[in-house]
Amino acid sequence: MNNQIKEFIEDNDRFASHSAIKLLEVNRGSATAEMEIKPFHLNASGTVHGAALFTLADLVLAAASNSRGRLALSIQASMNFFQAEREGKLTAMAEEIKKHPRLATYRVEIRNEKDELIADFEGTVYRKKEKFPPEIK
Amino acid sequence: MNNQIKEFIEDNDRFASHSAIKLLEVNRGSATAEMEIKPFHLNASGTVHGAALFTLADLVLAAASNSRGRLALSIQASMNFFQAEREGKLTAMAEEIKKHPRLATYRVEIRNEKDELIADFEGTVYRKKEKFPPEIK
Amino acid sequence: MNNQIKEFIEDNDRFASHSAIKLLEVNRGSATAEMEIKPFHLNASGTVHGAALFTLADLVLAAASNSRGRLALSIQASMNFFQAEREGKLTAMAEEIKKHPRLATYRVEIRNEKDELIADFEGTVYRKKEKFPPEIK
Amino acid sequence: MNNQIKEFIEDNDRFASHSAIKLLEVNRGSATAEMEIKPFHLNASGTVHGAALFTLADLVLAAASNSRGRLALSIQASMNFFQAEREGKLTAMAEEIKKHPRLATYRVEIRNEKDELIADFEGTVYRKKEKFPPEIK
Repeated sequence: MNNQIKEFIEDNDRFASHSAIKLLEVNRGSATAEMEIKPFHLNASGTVHGAALFTLADLVLAAASNSRGRLALSIQASMNFFQAEREGKLTAMAEEIKKHPRLATYRVEIRNEKDELIADFEGTVYRKKEKFPPEIK
Repeated sequence: MNNQIKEFIEDNDRFASHSAIKLLEVNRGSATAEMEIKPFHLNASGTVHGAALFTLADLVLAAASNSRGRLALSIQASMNFFQAEREGKLTAMAEEIKKHPRLATYRVEIRNEKDELIADFEGTVYRKKEKFPPEIK
Repeated sequence: MNNQIKEFIEDNDRFASHSAIKLLEVNRGSATAEMEIKPFHLNASGTVHGAALFTLADLVLAAASNSRGRLALSIQASMNFFQAEREGKLTAMAEEIKKHPRLATYRVEIRNEKDELIADFEGTVYRKKEKFPPEIK
Repeated sequence: MNNQIKEFIEDNDRFASHSAIKLLEVNRGSATAEMEIKPFHLNASGTVHGAALFTLADLVLAAASNSRGRLALSIQASMNFFQAEREGKLTAMAEEIKKHPRLATYRVEIRNEKDELIADFEGTVYRKKEKFPPEIK
């Protein structure tokens, strides 16, 4: 497990912590996170907001893509929403499906506690030359 | 302007209000919102989080698609991220590009205060038979 | 194997046969096809055209989604292109990742003869009430 | 009009010519093409194949992105299919919505003779250092 990357993201990804998403594990090219559905995650229909699901997916994308030690920035994401959830814990897993020197693509699945597929996501990052986490001077 | 839809979303979209996004205007098939970048909108690189941009885009999608008076649920979204912002106000505008009885598609652009295109988004909704906002019994 | 669907598509999908794509197998919710790269599949750089790869992916999407016996129409597709090929045989496999009464989503992977991932694709269909293949009157 | 790029693509994009697509105009960052629907463009339902529409969209993407004089390779595309056509002429227009040194994104709309929107497409390219068209040695 890549604890240095995990701790840096936990300490610095403000929007993920604001959204109460917990990073569980970061490995080279993969990551897992969970989100316990809270009232502030809901949309106007009372189900978990698509944007909360995107935030969960995007966190594991960021963790998995930056786990390679170079700064990776999202350039494109596509997401499908399959099922509306009202409560319980959702888990997201990212896996790397292709890595080039400059570009890499990750697939993310979000599942509920019954292991049903709630949403899936595919994201592409641009890999900068800067190291990640940034070195402290 | 469709004030009934606007007020219902403002009162009930919990994740949008948690993310400090302000709905400015809702018309039939279009909507506008803004987000003043706050520290909790940032990612681990100190720029506005892709998921915060998605949340902004998704709110105008929801407002524009539900403005037709029938409950619309997002089924798919694709987003491109063009430019990293650190501060200031971002504005999102959704416009309807196709509407069928069951499906409709919306395009969203997010711009900064200099009117530069920061991200774009395209989302498709499934239109249920239920009315929106739901009638109070 | 669903031979009735396979034969109907082979006989009637004109653009797939024009593109020399061969449907290998159709099962309930999945399908496989192959394309031997020919000169007319190439783009201006001399590698296999992204649109030829899309045609290959779209055929297995159509076969897998129509295998359920109801007419399925593509409404959205997202595709990532990972690697440029110049020759040899490419294989596409579609699998169903979610099926609702009205909507279903399929993931497709295209691989070369070394089993390297060349491109991936995700497509959503709208499921009409009409039967597929259409009944002959 | 960029006639050098237009002629090079017309002479060398084999899959586009196999698909009877005609490039009409190429400018810096934009392009237009048309496709007269022929029997070989149809799918098993007798309407124009989604993959034929993708081929049309992809040609204007290639022309618009390579019009900048550097080799541009598609890395991602998302497409929405709105309306099934059986005959007539379809026109595709690509416009550049963002250009970075390494990446650029284009939006494409396909319309029928009544100017109805049949499909839309958004594609991102990776811009290589090699010139386009390649220099003859």
